Amino acid sequence: MGRKKAVVWEDQSLLLLDQRKLPGEVVQVRCTTPEDVARCIKEMVVRGAPAIGIAAAYGLVLAAREGVQRVKDAALLLRQTRPTAVNLFWAIDRMLAATAGCQGEDLYQHLLAEAHGLAQADIQTNQRIGAHGATLVPKGAGILTHCNAGALATVDYGTALGVVRAAHSAGKDITVYACETRPFLQGARLTTWELVEDGIPVTLITDNMAGYLMQKGQVSLVIVGADRIAANGDVANKIGTYGLAVLAQAHGIPFYVAAPTSTIDLTLAGGEEIPIEERPAEEVTHFLGQKVAPRGVAVWNPAFDVTPHHLITGIITEVGVLREPYHKSIKELFAHDRA
Amino acid sequence: MGRKKAVVWEDQSLLLLDQRKLPGEVVQVRCTTPEDVARCIKEMVVRGAPAIGIAAAYGLVLAAREGVQRVKDAALLLRQTRPTAVNLFWAIDRMLAATAGCQGEDLYQHLLAEAHGLAQADIQTNQRIGAHGATLVPKGAGILTHCNAGALATVDYGTALGVVRAAHSAGKDITVYACETRPFLQGARLTTWELVEDGIPVTLITDNMAGYLMQKGQVSLVIVGADRIAANGDVANKIGTYGLAVLAQAHGIPFYVAAPTSTIDLTLAGGEEIPIEERPAEEVTHFLGQKVAPRGVAVWNPAFDVTPHHLITGIITEVGVLREPYHKSIKELFAHDRA
Repeated sequence: MGRKKAVVWEDQSLLLLDQRKLPGEVVQVRCTTPEDVARCIKEMVVRGAPAIGIAAAYGLVLAAREGVQRVKDAALLLRQTRPTAVNLFWAIDRMLAATAGCQGEDLYQHLLAEAHGLAQADIQTNQRIGAHGATLVPKGAGILTHCNAGALATVDYGTALGVVRAAHSAGKDITVYACETRPFLQGARLTTWELVEDGIPVTLITDNMAGYLMQKGQVSLVIVGADRIAANGDVANKIGTYGLAVLAQAHGIPFYVAAPTSTIDLTLAGGEEIPIEERPAEEVTHFLGQKVAPRGVAVWNPAFDVTPHHLITGIITEVGVLREPYHKSIKELFAHDRA
Repeated sequence: MGRKKAVVWEDQSLLLLDQRKLPGEVVQVRCTTPEDVARCIKEMVVRGAPAIGIAAAYGLVLAAREGVQRVKDAALLLRQTRPTAVNLFWAIDRMLAATAGCQGEDLYQHLLAEAHGLAQADIQTNQRIGAHGATLVPKGAGILTHCNAGALATVDYGTALGVVRAAHSAGKDITVYACETRPFLQGARLTTWELVEDGIPVTLITDNMAGYLMQKGQVSLVIVGADRIAANGDVANKIGTYGLAVLAQAHGIPFYVAAPTSTIDLTLAGGEEIPIEERPAEEVTHFLGQKVAPRGVAVWNPAFDVTPHHLITGIITEVGVLREPYHKSIKELFAHDRA
């Protein structure tokens, strides 16, 4: 794939593909300080749970030459950018652990190696998610996806779109239906862009068409990504995911979540404990800078919703597909991990 | 209400409020021929099932001074503008029936009186729908609506928003949640505009937030309009309506359709027979003239969907609230009508 990557380390700085401007413009933003990275995460230059984790990791590398205290301060700043995706906190914690006993140029090299390691691992993780997930995709399947859980949401390959890529490579003759995903249009702008570039058949719909598409028998399965998964299997993901899960169940359609195990937050018993970010009203009242709603209207703009575990057919991770009862399968997974 | 009306007859021509430009610009399009009116219906200058019926009726008045054959030709043209809303065909049939035995200036005056009669009746119909519907609204209700079934979709007052207005006037302390309604944004641009002008509390959400809003317990009932209702109670309405009906059922929330009896099409046994318009891909790939999806992506853009009758708690008409079994309650309604 000749496609520009979402997160690239180059010349001692972090290049982030500006995802607000895709697909019209393909431009990168150069970050040379943790503050640059924090702003890019907050303003969604970079988005997608795994990608913002890796971006934050490199953000700490950018602080490393100024010492451990500066790294710790940067970690605090980066933690405050977006509250929902746990991969951000996971990556920061991994990086902070790697500072132990390091200083000076050694600290920098050590953190850079750690960030590179996380980035490389992310690609392998996604390829494994793809391989596990592809076994769940029937030949000729219509796959509905929401938002962008693709190469652009990760270091490469994607989670939900990793499954799509693996199924396509396996010759399964799939078709993807991409929900446009208001208000930020990650589906229209990013998912279709990735798939068109890869030559994978994709049809764009507005979010409110998903139900009718299912009623017409066009959807074989739904696959989405995740921003945080609680210990009981409840999943926080892009707003609209919950509605798709309810619709899938009403139509007897399997509903899968594809995510690395780093998205699982064992400290939260259930989805009601996951902090849900609310974003500015202007994302809904304005479109590409133009006002589309009248002055004085109130707006509710949650960036994510929570899908209860009982609506989820399986959670596709790099170590296999988790099934109900999730509180058990998730517990077992981490017991093995530690062993 | 000082608000400009959707459909106004003035100086022997038809003034249509350009609903593509609201709320940013409040401008009217002057139609002096049936061809003008046909183009305005097709391009959605005027939209909403009752409003396009009345617009077509006046379109035939614009043909009347050129004789009965010209009226018949204009009827043929107007019938081809949009396929789903049955009120269009209903109004044209009513107007054609009124041509019987008329010619010259007499034909013109006769058709003008008939069109004025339909327009006046539409307002009364909506007020009655409002009165019947308001009895179903609990005090303090959160009412979710989709698209615009308001004053702008009718001659005045609205169907679903007629119920909202009646409940508000009755001091029921309601709050409205308006789905923005992609791709044309009738909810964001028209529904919120009407309600803000009337001082009725309204919160705008994107379509994909409706499920989460219901999960959070904020929705007491859903009220939408209709473009065509089959003899068994299946309802064609703006795309996304079906998804809301499934979500409402999953949450135990009443789901109401508000529509005049002229929206009921007894010639169709069920919703699968209702013709569903598919509109141009550009409505989805472009936004206010700016491209938001990559070149080469396929698009599915149905303008309506079909909600099966078993998901509908009641159909609020000007003669009362119809309930299951709809094939019986609808049959009885028309038997009474003819008696």
